Amino acid sequence: MHHHPWQDTSRPSEERAADLLSRMTLEEKLAQLSSIWPGSEAEGEDVAPFQHEVSEAVDLDGLLPHGLGQLTRPFGTAPVDPTEGARALADFQSRVAAANRFGIPALAHEECLTGFTAWQATVFPTPLAWGATFDPALVREMSAAIGASMRSVGIHQGLSPVLDVVRDPRWGRTEESIGEDPYLVATVATAYVAGLESAGIVATLKHFAGYSASRGGRNHAPVSIGPRELADVILPPFEMALREGGARSVMHAYNDLDGVPAAASPDLLTGLLREEWGFTGTVVADYFGISFLERNHRVADSPARAGALALAAGVDVELPSVRCYGEPLLKAVRSGEVSEELVDRAVLRVLRQKCELGLLDPDWKPTVPEGKVDLDPPAMRELARRVAEESVVLLDNRRDVLPLSPTARIAVVGPYADERSAMLGCYTFPRHVGVEHPDLALGVEIPTLLDSLGAELPGADLTASPEDADIVVAVLGDRSGLFGRGTSGEGCDAEDLTLPDGQAAFLDELLERTDKPVVLVLLTGRPYALGRWDGRLAAVVQAFFPGEEGGPAVAGVLTGRIDPSGRLPVSVPRGNGGQPWTYLAPPLGLKGAASNLDPTPLYPFGHGLSYTTFAWEGAGADTDALPTDGGTRVRLTVRNTGERAGTEVVQLYLHDPVARTVQPVSRLVGYARVALEPGQAAEVVFDFHADLASYTERPGRRIVEPGAVELRLAASSADVRHTVPLTLTGEERTVGHDRRMTCGAEVRVLRP
Amino acid sequence: MHHHPWQDTSRPSEERAADLLSRMTLEEKLAQLSSIWPGSEAEGEDVAPFQHEVSEAVDLDGLLPHGLGQLTRPFGTAPVDPTEGARALADFQSRVAAANRFGIPALAHEECLTGFTAWQATVFPTPLAWGATFDPALVREMSAAIGASMRSVGIHQGLSPVLDVVRDPRWGRTEESIGEDPYLVATVATAYVAGLESAGIVATLKHFAGYSASRGGRNHAPVSIGPRELADVILPPFEMALREGGARSVMHAYNDLDGVPAAASPDLLTGLLREEWGFTGTVVADYFGISFLERNHRVADSPARAGALALAAGVDVELPSVRCYGEPLLKAVRSGEVSEELVDRAVLRVLRQKCELGLLDPDWKPTVPEGKVDLDPPAMRELARRVAEESVVLLDNRRDVLPLSPTARIAVVGPYADERSAMLGCYTFPRHVGVEHPDLALGVEIPTLLDSLGAELPGADLTASPEDADIVVAVLGDRSGLFGRGTSGEGCDAEDLTLPDGQAAFLDELLERTDKPVVLVLLTGRPYALGRWDGRLAAVVQAFFPGEEGGPAVAGVLTGRIDPSGRLPVSVPRGNGGQPWTYLAPPLGLKGAASNLDPTPLYPFGHGLSYTTFAWEGAGADTDALPTDGGTRVRLTVRNTGERAGTEVVQLYLHDPVARTVQPVSRLVGYARVALEPGQAAEVVFDFHADLASYTERPGRRIVEPGAVELRLAASSADVRHTVPLTLTGEERTVGHDRRMTCGAEVRVLRP
Repeated sequence: MHHHPWQDTSRPSEERAADLLSRMTLEEKLAQLSSIWPGSEAEGEDVAPFQHEVSEAVDLDGLLPHGLGQLTRPFGTAPVDPTEGARALADFQSRVAAANRFGIPALAHEECLTGFTAWQATVFPTPLAWGATFDPALVREMSAAIGASMRSVGIHQGLSPVLDVVRDPRWGRTEESIGEDPYLVATVATAYVAGLESAGIVATLKHFAGYSASRGGRNHAPVSIGPRELADVILPPFEMALREGGARSVMHAYNDLDGVPAAASPDLLTGLLREEWGFTGTVVADYFGISFLERNHRVADSPARAGALALAAGVDVELPSVRCYGEPLLKAVRSGEVSEELVDRAVLRVLRQKCELGLLDPDWKPTVPEGKVDLDPPAMRELARRVAEESVVLLDNRRDVLPLSPTARIAVVGPYADERSAMLGCYTFPRHVGVEHPDLALGVEIPTLLDSLGAELPGADLTASPEDADIVVAVLGDRSGLFGRGTSGEGCDAEDLTLPDGQAAFLDELLERTDKPVVLVLLTGRPYALGRWDGRLAAVVQAFFPGEEGGPAVAGVLTGRIDPSGRLPVSVPRGNGGQPWTYLAPPLGLKGAASNLDPTPLYPFGHGLSYTTFAWEGAGADTDALPTDGGTRVRLTVRNTGERAGTEVVQLYLHDPVARTVQPVSRLVGYARVALEPGQAAEVVFDFHADLASYTERPGRRIVEPGAVELRLAASSADVRHTVPLTLTGEERTVGHDRRMTCGAEVRVLRP
Repeated sequence: MHHHPWQDTSRPSEERAADLLSRMTLEEKLAQLSSIWPGSEAEGEDVAPFQHEVSEAVDLDGLLPHGLGQLTRPFGTAPVDPTEGARALADFQSRVAAANRFGIPALAHEECLTGFTAWQATVFPTPLAWGATFDPALVREMSAAIGASMRSVGIHQGLSPVLDVVRDPRWGRTEESIGEDPYLVATVATAYVAGLESAGIVATLKHFAGYSASRGGRNHAPVSIGPRELADVILPPFEMALREGGARSVMHAYNDLDGVPAAASPDLLTGLLREEWGFTGTVVADYFGISFLERNHRVADSPARAGALALAAGVDVELPSVRCYGEPLLKAVRSGEVSEELVDRAVLRVLRQKCELGLLDPDWKPTVPEGKVDLDPPAMRELARRVAEESVVLLDNRRDVLPLSPTARIAVVGPYADERSAMLGCYTFPRHVGVEHPDLALGVEIPTLLDSLGAELPGADLTASPEDADIVVAVLGDRSGLFGRGTSGEGCDAEDLTLPDGQAAFLDELLERTDKPVVLVLLTGRPYALGRWDGRLAAVVQAFFPGEEGGPAVAGVLTGRIDPSGRLPVSVPRGNGGQPWTYLAPPLGLKGAASNLDPTPLYPFGHGLSYTTFAWEGAGADTDALPTDGGTRVRLTVRNTGERAGTEVVQLYLHDPVARTVQPVSRLVGYARVALEPGQAAEVVFDFHADLASYTERPGRRIVEPGAVELRLAASSADVRHTVPLTLTGEERTVGHDRRMTCGAEVRVLRP
């Protein structure tokens, strides 16, 4: 028995939240919509350029009696021993709970893009590398492990994943994105979400919506986009991750869309997200994003007005501060400028989520880890290794110089040959905190590529010079960082796709200086233009910040210990200009008479080689005609015709030859990884549904149209092996948020 | 007395057209919607890459008995003596009229972007140069002269001007555009239209709409745009040119907008253009644009379906062929697939226009010029000279090396120093026809810059080498052409803004080789990145394909005979990447913390120097508060404080500090050229109306919002001399197509 309904764990969370809300003062309500970032003062300008907003001394004794909605990044601001950090968090939560009359703790959130962004936590590969694996199941394992480790130290919410579909690889946050195809992004991100949520962590979908399409790839620049492109390219990953991943939180994007900031858009945050898609979780602000309505978008003339706009649009929680939803909103509600009903709407969502997380339960206790916390245990390293291994893409091996001979004289050159920083994206702990000294900051072991090659090839000479070596391995890459501190990462945008930091000139000179075969290894956060060296490199290996086990993974591919199975999640262009471009292009504007430019990439989306060879046989569908509400199975047999084990990634693209609106030449609608021993074959069966041929015909109306379509079984977006013509029959159908979005793929190994 | 009402010239054209329509067979109607291009077979692939569509032999004897709507480019396809060309056209028109039972001739159209695009016709500067003059009155004089010369040889319609607002200067057709600001484009284009129409030529607004915003600046690539940006940036020039210029024809754009091809958009071509704006003229196809619906946009599966879509959307006339509106549409109407009412709607517009042009009058006779036709008479050259002179922009003169000393030893170097082709844009006759031999093709005298400098500076030595000269003049530029034949022009897009054809390296080497002051002269069709040489050039002069009198105009500026008065219609960037960018940018995405990139241009929109100096004094408005439906006068006194005559261009920008949607930091709302003798002053009075502060708040709703705005009197978009704060008072107003769009400027020279 409890005093009040909200304390009664047998009642539904909706009811408990409503009861609690009814007992709250306005101050207490607003406290639940706000956040503090207690550790951030120490970091000064390093944490973010807008840090001044939170580094003003916070009067905890004044704030906490009303309660506290969110606690921002308790682990993420300085190198703290995880066991001590967990205890400090528990103590702080006890203080928060004790200070308010309901005894409610804060909801603690952390970053977790490439693993829990805390000191000594496993550093996983970046999202571009997840995309390259084409392996959602593995990504789900990874995020479940990340979630479990966060949960073990008292974190409730993770600010991941990023579902922004890459539209312009110059954007610095390309490394945080999964790829340039909405289906790949959607399936991989949904797997990440499902894993994180399975560990009890609230996954946060970001950034809703359109952020990746900023003009010129400049972070925060305006987004020119119309409703059809938004619906067909930008939104599907969010739809899938909510519906099939079960994400419980969404973060608004910083950008405006056609002049309306996402944070001030009721159409987006309420009309679409809540009313059309039925989302019931919380919408949180991107850091300082509500303030930006006043300071940068200039659609508000005060913090109160910015808060009012965001609240009305549907932003429930201000992060990471109380600048708008604190005192200014309090006054605005008191004066009648803002309706208290809007506050109640947001608070109810926050309380319901806290209730679901057990934070309103009478027996709630802060999480105190048993014994010593290890955020990088062997099982996590093992996962990091597997993701890294599957993510390495062999782009070219035209002179068959790979795998490296175990006794070769190898010149390992380039700025990242013996440098582990190119293994790390900007949302790893040291990068994000901006700690200069990596030994202090990393807290985890990160072998360099040279270390790893040495371990793999004890019989080789890795100290040869490019002149006297048998082969040259040139290791180039990005420095990831935040806000101008790197060549890739948040706030580190590129004017063009020239290899950064003079590395294009380095490669030019190297090729000038040696006549030995040169293997280019790239450890980057975006694709770079490689057309300048096309035909002059013996082999090219692309990895995308592969994390703490990236060195061994790349070395394993170079030596042949691992068969490369990564596929490009982004096109690698020929030229350094001409952006934006992705493979989702309609016929007009492609190579042809209308323009002298040929945007055809050097290595297309989906491309990647193996050391073995595969035959693609027996392609076909169960039927050549299916109704607009029907499905069919599409089959293919893949046989390993080489002499070593390897993995083929079978990709299914849809080509719609004639439609009501302009369509890309093709787009991904399914894929399957097929691991095969030499001589082994497997049947791949795709469960294709007509819903996957749907497109937005006019704003708000998605249709499946009768008529001919073509399914393309392909090894990349440009390497079509078999086409399967289909006719969609019957009536045109309007489909909605409940449409089939995924194309299941069953892989059945055949006994010979 | 006449047999039929349509022959009765006393009746309104509407009535005559309807009567004639009622007498026509379906074949006769469709013939009025079609066009033939009889001279084009000779040119093969040179005329356009889609030439095969028209070069199939046309059966005139079969076609003409039904009539003929339009005659495509009778002068533009081969070098023909204009007198003979006019006679041939008259003969052809007689044949057309004689062949159909109503005796109606064709409406003959020609290109006239930089003058009548015919052999031996005056070559005026390109539209970017018109923009640089900031002188609509002069542009109107020019187009009136162009129109008169076209009219004199029997042409009825001119396919100009281009109203596409530059959104990405990599686009090859940037040279055909007037600038990156909608107000500048609108006012200059409207003047052009008014001039052409004053000569009785139907002006054709192109390209409706959005063409300039194609992705990556690639010609015909998709356009990502939302309705607000379209309404605030792309559409205003069309609105103004229709309403205030009186244009009688509109050409659809090739591109799609958010997936809907302009040629298949009833919203654009009928809803907006006809129903909202009240346009009653004709909508013509861009060449092959209807076929593109089938061939490239893939929204139609046959010529008939492409024709049906275009006709329903509101394209009245197919150009330059009969591929869709001929036989295919005939069958589709006969079979009931397409309503004959849609055909009637289009034919009525065509007949009404023909009626207004006198082509339905019983006494119609083909135009036969009296005596010899001169398409480049002295008065036209004089106009070409004036436009060229006013369009040259002095970007930099930091070492005061200009004007050149009359006795200097000058090294005139660079590929365009003695090359007249950089004077010509792609819509000049030889460029457009693709004739290789310029002497044959030009037909008009075009002095090179070296010729002109020699004429201006008889006492100077122009043959010095960069090592022994007093000063070096490096003349770099573009080769304009069509479809990949040039570095600028239609189908000649740029991957980035590096000076083309190795000229960046040429300039690097030149600066390496000499320590003499280097003056850079650019004769280009787009702005190029100059940041690489910032501070190393003694002076920079920018001209935009200045036409047949461009050599003397640029030379005149270099020698000081002419005070430079051109101002940049497009920003000149520092770096060669980072596009798209224009000055119409909101605060987010500009220089700041969110991105490492700084898109601030090297020379901003509106920038340009004079050889004299000006004081800006006494700025102010009649009031500091005006109602949202009111106006005020904004004053400024400009004084020539130097020792020579010169022209200042006073620019008025609007800064809206807080608005409902994201606004650019500032945008142009008025300007005035002020020519002053030494010591002379003039008062400039702008007639500012609150309508000029309107913006699109949501699709279809343009408002004037009460609150603070700031008017900025400025010498460029980045060089604000005085700010005038204003408060808009009273009610928010919704404004429409009848709003005030122009800001009159009165310049009154003060007697001292």
